[in-house]
Amino acid sequence: MRYTGLIERYQSKLPVTDATRPISLGEGNTPLIQLQNIATMLGKKHKIYIKYEGLNPTGSFKDRGMTMAVTKAVESGSKAIICASTGNTSASAAAYAARAGIKAFVVIPEGKIALGKLAQAMIHGAVIIQIKGNFDDGMRLVKEVAEHAPVSIVNSINPFRLQGQKTAAFEIIEELGNAPDYHYLPVGNAGNISAHWMGYKEYHSDGKSNHTPKMVGYQAAGSAPFVIGSMVDNPETIATAIRIGHPQSWDLAQKVIKESNGWFDARTDAQILTTQKLLTEKEGIFCEPASSVSLSGAIADIKTGKIPQKSTIVCTLTGHGLKDPDTAISQCTDAIININPTIDEVRDAILNNM
Amino acid sequence: MRYTGLIERYQSKLPVTDATRPISLGEGNTPLIQLQNIATMLGKKHKIYIKYEGLNPTGSFKDRGMTMAVTKAVESGSKAIICASTGNTSASAAAYAARAGIKAFVVIPEGKIALGKLAQAMIHGAVIIQIKGNFDDGMRLVKEVAEHAPVSIVNSINPFRLQGQKTAAFEIIEELGNAPDYHYLPVGNAGNISAHWMGYKEYHSDGKSNHTPKMVGYQAAGSAPFVIGSMVDNPETIATAIRIGHPQSWDLAQKVIKESNGWFDARTDAQILTTQKLLTEKEGIFCEPASSVSLSGAIADIKTGKIPQKSTIVCTLTGHGLKDPDTAISQCTDAIININPTIDEVRDAILNNM
Repeated sequence: MRYTGLIERYQSKLPVTDATRPISLGEGNTPLIQLQNIATMLGKKHKIYIKYEGLNPTGSFKDRGMTMAVTKAVESGSKAIICASTGNTSASAAAYAARAGIKAFVVIPEGKIALGKLAQAMIHGAVIIQIKGNFDDGMRLVKEVAEHAPVSIVNSINPFRLQGQKTAAFEIIEELGNAPDYHYLPVGNAGNISAHWMGYKEYHSDGKSNHTPKMVGYQAAGSAPFVIGSMVDNPETIATAIRIGHPQSWDLAQKVIKESNGWFDARTDAQILTTQKLLTEKEGIFCEPASSVSLSGAIADIKTGKIPQKSTIVCTLTGHGLKDPDTAISQCTDAIININPTIDEVRDAILNNM
Repeated sequence: MRYTGLIERYQSKLPVTDATRPISLGEGNTPLIQLQNIATMLGKKHKIYIKYEGLNPTGSFKDRGMTMAVTKAVESGSKAIICASTGNTSASAAAYAARAGIKAFVVIPEGKIALGKLAQAMIHGAVIIQIKGNFDDGMRLVKEVAEHAPVSIVNSINPFRLQGQKTAAFEIIEELGNAPDYHYLPVGNAGNISAHWMGYKEYHSDGKSNHTPKMVGYQAAGSAPFVIGSMVDNPETIATAIRIGHPQSWDLAQKVIKESNGWFDARTDAQILTTQKLLTEKEGIFCEPASSVSLSGAIADIKTGKIPQKSTIVCTLTGHGLKDPDTAISQCTDAIININPTIDEVRDAILNNM
């Protein structure tokens, strides 16, 4: 049977009715890939799985929340959506608005945004509104304008976003036949870790798993409010997707860690990039820098002995590497080999590099 | 149950045994998305589906063939693979070699390749061998070197590639409950249309469909040997993934068209780009330029009345738009709107652009 997206798949667990018309691009249903070479390097004492969310339609996990947010916006009669994000959220919002046949508006601060970051939003026909102000001004305006214009906000304050995102936990339980022992996630706004916990708790109540996982949230060291215990005014990290100093889901995420017996911790930019390279070169999996912080944290915790042997660990990779190839290429230090087009030189180039 | 890639899924239909160790990244299982807004524009007289192959792990359909080619290379004892491609094939080869823990060599002609095209291959740790010669020299050397060095060729002359690619037809029959009436594909080397036809015929023999589709191959007008009826020495098109003048699978593909009662035709670069833009703006689906030639052809054939009403049509999109965002961005003509950060100006920007 044709897979038609997560709203139809999980209708009974989502705030929709039979009358709801899902706006879907076939999001969700992403592969859960067991690590092999990295697991061997770590002594094969754990089962480590990657939930590869970069294989959602626009290349990031944001599509899970956006299918819900846009479906509900259309259901309530909205002819337009708006958000203040400049990265993966705006790409997803623009694509789902296109699919729904409604308008998407993206508010950005003047001069602060690389055009490349907005590429997907522009390509999907979103209207880009650039303001003479900073990102906080943008967010404030987006919140206010919904009272003055017929637009629905699809930033993470939209409650339907987390409802869609919780389905990743459903999939993992179905794939493993149970919840994992540990679930590692990159943490920026902290919505995704909260959504996963909601999903794990719901399926546990339904008897689909016999336990819930410890939730572990990893941040970038230069942008780690949950690790520090207070907001960060000038977050800095190469992992732009989690460069957030004032997380929207602060209280929710604190509760997740407490309830699940998990923890927050951080990795440096150098450690994040090392793990990204390890994943691409040893497992063939290419992700955004921010994504690799989850596995980077898991590897660190395995090495210190914090994770008991034989544990099952899931690490979420939030976005595909093709979202930000430049950072990855800058990590490639191997030179291109230049030779003459003779069989001897090609053979030597191969044999010298086996 | 966890989806572990197409070799385990279709083991009984592929040249593997229980002893085969699949090298997989969770490829296949891509969404089949029904067009809505474009179908409405065309009068809703047909059911048009998109097989979104850009949601394979490295962003293109090549992963279906590469999982087979690398699995069989490892099974035969190879410690390295080699190919002469510079685009999606090299990206896929490098990723699966990384997953297998073997070496990948990519042979490229000097000075003819934009570095960005090789980004994925480099990131996954492939060894890039640049020769003082052209692409034909590279292909000849790759073929010869396999006799002189312990490497397996994974170019499209590798017969296992088509075996893996045929599984897309299996998925479509399972998704629709039958074969479509028409299947449109972009045609470059012509391996993929041949592989699909193999898959459709096998499932038809197995009783899983009650008919086979007409296979329709579309080329770019500047690179259309099948339409012209002879090889093209200097193919030119913006759709680089199908810029091939001397297709490897010439005889196979001619037979497909004859057996299936299908046809070859071509679209201009302008028409290809128009369809790419239509898909992104009206359906939220972003693909490479070469991918959109399949839908572009289907739309043209619907408009001329060549396709009977109520037909079911599948169009394959071979690669994700994130593979080549620059071409798409250059099509975006809408300006960014610059305003002051006041609620009145934001509201006006929205209302003026609804």
